[in-house]
Amino acid sequence: MAEFVKEYAALTPEERAREYDAAREEWERFKASGLKLNMARGKPGKEQLDVVSGIFFRMLEHDEYLSDGEDVRNYGELAGLPSARRLFADILDCKPEQVFVGGNASLQLMYDTISKGFTHGLLHSSGPWFKEGMIRWLCPVPGYDRHFRITEDFGFEMIPVPMTPNGPNMDFVESAVKDPSVKGMWCVPKYSNPQGVIYSEETIHRLASMKTAAPDFLLMWDNAYVVHEFEGEYQPFPDMLSVCAEHGNPHRVIEFASTSKITLPGAGVSCFACSVENMTYLKRLLSVQAISFDKVNQQRHVLYLRSKQRTLDLMKEHAAILRPKFRCVEETLENKIGKLNIAKWNHPKGGYFISLDAMPGTARRALHLCHQAGVTMTAAGATYPYGLDPLDSNIRIAPSYPPIGELRKAAEILCVCLRLAALEKLEG
Amino acid sequence: MAEFVKEYAALTPEERAREYDAAREEWERFKASGLKLNMARGKPGKEQLDVVSGIFFRMLEHDEYLSDGEDVRNYGELAGLPSARRLFADILDCKPEQVFVGGNASLQLMYDTISKGFTHGLLHSSGPWFKEGMIRWLCPVPGYDRHFRITEDFGFEMIPVPMTPNGPNMDFVESAVKDPSVKGMWCVPKYSNPQGVIYSEETIHRLASMKTAAPDFLLMWDNAYVVHEFEGEYQPFPDMLSVCAEHGNPHRVIEFASTSKITLPGAGVSCFACSVENMTYLKRLLSVQAISFDKVNQQRHVLYLRSKQRTLDLMKEHAAILRPKFRCVEETLENKIGKLNIAKWNHPKGGYFISLDAMPGTARRALHLCHQAGVTMTAAGATYPYGLDPLDSNIRIAPSYPPIGELRKAAEILCVCLRLAALEKLEG
Repeated sequence: MAEFVKEYAALTPEERAREYDAAREEWERFKASGLKLNMARGKPGKEQLDVVSGIFFRMLEHDEYLSDGEDVRNYGELAGLPSARRLFADILDCKPEQVFVGGNASLQLMYDTISKGFTHGLLHSSGPWFKEGMIRWLCPVPGYDRHFRITEDFGFEMIPVPMTPNGPNMDFVESAVKDPSVKGMWCVPKYSNPQGVIYSEETIHRLASMKTAAPDFLLMWDNAYVVHEFEGEYQPFPDMLSVCAEHGNPHRVIEFASTSKITLPGAGVSCFACSVENMTYLKRLLSVQAISFDKVNQQRHVLYLRSKQRTLDLMKEHAAILRPKFRCVEETLENKIGKLNIAKWNHPKGGYFISLDAMPGTARRALHLCHQAGVTMTAAGATYPYGLDPLDSNIRIAPSYPPIGELRKAAEILCVCLRLAALEKLEG
Repeated sequence: MAEFVKEYAALTPEERAREYDAAREEWERFKASGLKLNMARGKPGKEQLDVVSGIFFRMLEHDEYLSDGEDVRNYGELAGLPSARRLFADILDCKPEQVFVGGNASLQLMYDTISKGFTHGLLHSSGPWFKEGMIRWLCPVPGYDRHFRITEDFGFEMIPVPMTPNGPNMDFVESAVKDPSVKGMWCVPKYSNPQGVIYSEETIHRLASMKTAAPDFLLMWDNAYVVHEFEGEYQPFPDMLSVCAEHGNPHRVIEFASTSKITLPGAGVSCFACSVENMTYLKRLLSVQAISFDKVNQQRHVLYLRSKQRTLDLMKEHAAILRPKFRCVEETLENKIGKLNIAKWNHPKGGYFISLDAMPGTARRALHLCHQAGVTMTAAGATYPYGLDPLDSNIRIAPSYPPIGELRKAAEILCVCLRLAALEKLEG
């Protein structure tokens, strides 16, 4: 079938009707085929899991039970194995004493940080946040739904911050932090979720240096995709701990990372990194809830990943699997709706998502049509606080999980649904 | 050297002086030998870790990546692998749908439960506890210091409840729970920490049936030693979920357990168990902080432990290592200070501790002397809320970690220190 090439906005009513019938027929055909496809979450595919099977073959020798002379199989070392702290410091370009290595999920560490602020306060808080009345939080949009759910869960008022190609709109941010009730901000600084934006040098320095009214203002620096290029070479990225320190605000940032998309999703190792003073403060709070995290799994990771360089080598294997999947989705979008002027999307070189902006007022409808045709997508609005996308436009596409055949089919269905939703909208 | 056999209280001043000089000389000799011994924590010894090395040899075959047809290596299943939920249900004698399988530490799950009560409230709370003013909490004493630290950390007022050979003094408890600010109670129902008491049937039924003024009153049922006999056969213990349900209070209890002292300390798998309504409520809250816990480690445990029966078989191997250690400490105590009437101690058949009550007013001094002689013990007072033992008497002995030679030496030093502290006290 020849692809339709005329901008939808320029169609005559008759052309629109014909196009609608054609798209509807296509959609009905997909629907009738009873598919069950999923592009909802940034979940690695099976090929990626198989790439790291070697990790299961660590810890088979008794000498692997020891790390720096300590038996990793017993209690102790709340902040993690020293060797694991060194590994993450290598990857994050910070110092081992700034790193706390935790359990299987950085999400848990992030939740815990916010929770600690709420119940106990942070290093420079005057007290627990629950005593301070309304807490406000900056949320770059579109952003990561699980971040927003955490701050929503604690009743914070979330303030959407528009994203630009260089990161969050810094004029907006600098103005917002003059309010002392604005206590922090979510950031995914490298390959932002979902747009794949890399924060610029200027953005980073303005975040590190800006004057905040709250003495305990916190950058939740989720460096989830720190080594997650799937296109081109590894892009070094400034160590935000150093940048903040350089500007006299060393305690402003807590950085998070994990191996969920390096080794195994949900069975990897997570960490946070922060100033040594923050570390002392947080360790004291964390010592109430934990004796130690899973150091056996930390040791497995130290033995398997070994260094940043070896980790980057492994990431190239992931990239070889992910790259064709992203290309497949982008090509499908380009071929099927590239000329219609009903959607724009980004072309990320790392991370796990493609962010698509549909014609305003059509995202929800398009995803409903997808759902009916058997394609599960991240819910419309999910990339905004409270699930409310004011333009009803942003759609997050997660190409990593499905095999490429299914992925192409899912992308095709998405295109048909975007066409139908746009035509309905134009019809008014 | 012949052991001294006369009760200290009956000594003449001269005998006391002679005995003090003899004990002091012995203590100086120990001190001079520069020992570094540790009976502080319930930490398994190296022989116990070696017993479970087989667990590292799971997950080497691809077919082990699957559990009930699902790939355990990817995200998902917040409440844990169904097979892991079945395994714990088998061990705890409850239903799989009542079990949530978490990460490496039940302490974390316990902290999280209290934290959720504080920030969000529990199933039958009128709101978050932080809005309710003072929260009070029942703490059977002597008890587990890490429990008490959690409730202290949230600013709860802890009320010590005297322990009896049948569990907490229930007349006291039933009276205390008439106060609506009393929201819950710590319990280690089987082989209590540190006394090794098994709650009696009557105690359990009174806890399950008592009228509490707080609608959200919670039994924090830490079944840490559910299969942890080291002497004699496995003792079945009632499923508290059923007992509470039987008395019309199905949501009163959340039970906790882990494999920290079955497989690997700090690298095992933890769980909680509760009514299905509690589960639904807690899962909703937990879904904000976690996508899933480490299911790979859950799978390792399922493949390695297989069933309650196989777990009990494994516990016999642990028992064979632990039993001589407990005997060694008890024999040393009996030989060295058995006739002096300066201390009493229990004779547990399971769990990880011996609880010793020294002559009132001497525990702190005795442990200070131990410390000087190179023996680290759990801090005096640790078994009481806020670290305050009103009688300055209780000492928790943890025999599991040191090799038996060191253990005997450490117990001997403890005995000398108890003698010195008692003689100083009698001197007045």
